Amino acid sequence: MKILVANLGSTSFKYRLFDMNDERQLARGGTERIGGAESKCFVEIGGKRRELVAQVPDHAVAVRLCLEQLTDPADGCLKSGDEVAAIGFKAVHGGRYSGAQRVTSDVLAAMEEMSRVAPAHNPPYIKAMRLLNEKLPEIPLVAAFETGFHQTIPDRNKFYAVPYEWAEKFSIRRWGFHGASHRYIGGRCAELLGRKDLRVISCHLGGSNSLCAIKNGRSVATSLGMSPQTGLLHNNRVGDFDPFALPVVMQRTGKSLEQVLDDLAERSGLLGLSGVSEDIRDVETSANEGNARARLALDVFVGGIRSYLGAYLVELGGCDVIAFAGGIGENGAMIRKEVCAGLEELGIKLDETKNAGARTEQRISADDSRTQVWIVPTNEEIVVARLAKETLAGAK
Amino acid sequence: MKILVANLGSTSFKYRLFDMNDERQLARGGTERIGGAESKCFVEIGGKRRELVAQVPDHAVAVRLCLEQLTDPADGCLKSGDEVAAIGFKAVHGGRYSGAQRVTSDVLAAMEEMSRVAPAHNPPYIKAMRLLNEKLPEIPLVAAFETGFHQTIPDRNKFYAVPYEWAEKFSIRRWGFHGASHRYIGGRCAELLGRKDLRVISCHLGGSNSLCAIKNGRSVATSLGMSPQTGLLHNNRVGDFDPFALPVVMQRTGKSLEQVLDDLAERSGLLGLSGVSEDIRDVETSANEGNARARLALDVFVGGIRSYLGAYLVELGGCDVIAFAGGIGENGAMIRKEVCAGLEELGIKLDETKNAGARTEQRISADDSRTQVWIVPTNEEIVVARLAKETLAGAK
Repeated sequence: MKILVANLGSTSFKYRLFDMNDERQLARGGTERIGGAESKCFVEIGGKRRELVAQVPDHAVAVRLCLEQLTDPADGCLKSGDEVAAIGFKAVHGGRYSGAQRVTSDVLAAMEEMSRVAPAHNPPYIKAMRLLNEKLPEIPLVAAFETGFHQTIPDRNKFYAVPYEWAEKFSIRRWGFHGASHRYIGGRCAELLGRKDLRVISCHLGGSNSLCAIKNGRSVATSLGMSPQTGLLHNNRVGDFDPFALPVVMQRTGKSLEQVLDDLAERSGLLGLSGVSEDIRDVETSANEGNARARLALDVFVGGIRSYLGAYLVELGGCDVIAFAGGIGENGAMIRKEVCAGLEELGIKLDETKNAGARTEQRISADDSRTQVWIVPTNEEIVVARLAKETLAGAK
Repeated sequence: MKILVANLGSTSFKYRLFDMNDERQLARGGTERIGGAESKCFVEIGGKRRELVAQVPDHAVAVRLCLEQLTDPADGCLKSGDEVAAIGFKAVHGGRYSGAQRVTSDVLAAMEEMSRVAPAHNPPYIKAMRLLNEKLPEIPLVAAFETGFHQTIPDRNKFYAVPYEWAEKFSIRRWGFHGASHRYIGGRCAELLGRKDLRVISCHLGGSNSLCAIKNGRSVATSLGMSPQTGLLHNNRVGDFDPFALPVVMQRTGKSLEQVLDDLAERSGLLGLSGVSEDIRDVETSANEGNARARLALDVFVGGIRSYLGAYLVELGGCDVIAFAGGIGENGAMIRKEVCAGLEELGIKLDETKNAGARTEQRISADDSRTQVWIVPTNEEIVVARLAKETLAGAK
């Protein structure tokens, strides 16, 4: 069984193709600037990369072009597009739908109900999935919601202290996201240490950021809440914020609630605090050059990570593994060092040399650290492919 | 020098009178049902309690009656009302004013700017202080803002990741409250352990709740943020909440932003989740009788305390003392037990027998607990009196 895993942006489509018999990645590729005058489509199969430039008006055309490249008689890897058993999506917020779901009109309606909660994430997925259902109805679509892994979170970490009926009737609760990544990291840590009864704190740090407390392979707490704007700060999204500040901002700026929420979803986070960039590499460069606001943005970021790290140390009653993943988690030696600084008394001690040089999967804690600290490059796509496969099997 | 410390509700006035030469409490008293047909005014001086019933239309009349009782030739403790050097107030949110301040019209204006941020707290204080300035202009008023102790919090724990100018121009930041209580607890722990270089986690748990990380006597982080609705859940206020849930609630209920914020400030917290009561004793009784929502409310409360406890363990790199104060902190043996459960690996271990029986100031941790756990009954009034005294001295 072959499964294509799609990663969508509003004007981009990236994918990986897996053979699920052995979970081998057969191909990867993508298209950028969808809807523009010229789009570059690339595919990599067996180490060989090919590109073509075409006009790609929408995501359905992007998928058709992808299937053409994959089935190219000369250097494709599929005989026919029919071999693709499903397209799996790392969809974000399904509201009343969680887990992995065949994409029906009701699933799309549920996602639409959450569009204002996840304004950067839900709309492009809804649009593309609706189009694919219409234009390529022969390929089943599976949405593996990012909330799925967090369904095991106990009530104490799931509920906000709101009027109970809001939780019951309006889905107002901590949902959590980055589920595919945290699920992968939890499983991978169990493989690396050779035991399943682990207490893991998974740190997914990249454009958007979250920590997850994992006990015996199951999520028990995570920093993202009702919306993907919460928890740690993100590249341009706010992280935790006090709703009672909204009337003040509205009054002082003359903006509507919607406009202020837009500011929190698009012009906050690293970008808003630093005023420099939403890319942490630019912010680090600027901070090293003496920019105080850039330094502040990094301090707030690290402070937030340490705050949730502590919360999860207590949640788990101690921790066996701290795992760093994502673009920042894997490459950000300075951030990792600052996160772990001064925690010897709590059993956490980096090996500074290993940490400074590390890029790939490896242990970076000192030998006498009670908690092991690892870099674990994540693989969200294989998790989505597995969930899509299970969903197809379950639907039969 | 004598200082009267006032505690105001919208229809109540409670006070303590201190002789600041030796910090001795000379009297305490209060008036309830201000504005009603009949108010009960009581005073206790030297163990003797006297009561009178009168019509008390407003807080100025309540203060006059209090001064009459204190200067009663038969059993008062003052020769004249002139002996009261100042009235000190545990005022909540001064926005651009923090610390302790003489109550001027500009201080009152700054408090008014924060009325929607602190709707349960600021309006009654503003009204009463304005009235007292007008009717009893001879008595200086000092507002000791609850944000004052938290002025030492470093930027990493102070800033939300919002557009920087919101912090700079509109005072949008984590202010923190319960400053008088945390200041007292931090100082008292230093006395109890006989050293000043302490890392203390102060847990003020009562009608409203907050934790504070204190290092060498200074606040470095606290759970209350921009508004007194944040952090841990409170009796009827929400605690931490995701602003991106607001449009969903508004759409589903048809309520305005203001109405939804009212729900979060008045019908949430223990009350909203449990549906039983805002009084934790009622909620505990109901949970013990099998009410699942009451149990949920307690679980969310304890979960929140543990979450901030962990955050502050990491902030401080370990902890010398955890101190419980406030109505729940001092009397809630079950809550204390649940907060500290399973933390042996992190160096925290209660003595269950001591904890179960404790009510007054005492150590309740096991002898082999690396972190000492204490009950430290708080004394916010003496802190306000000290700050008022300092403010008067500074103004000369």
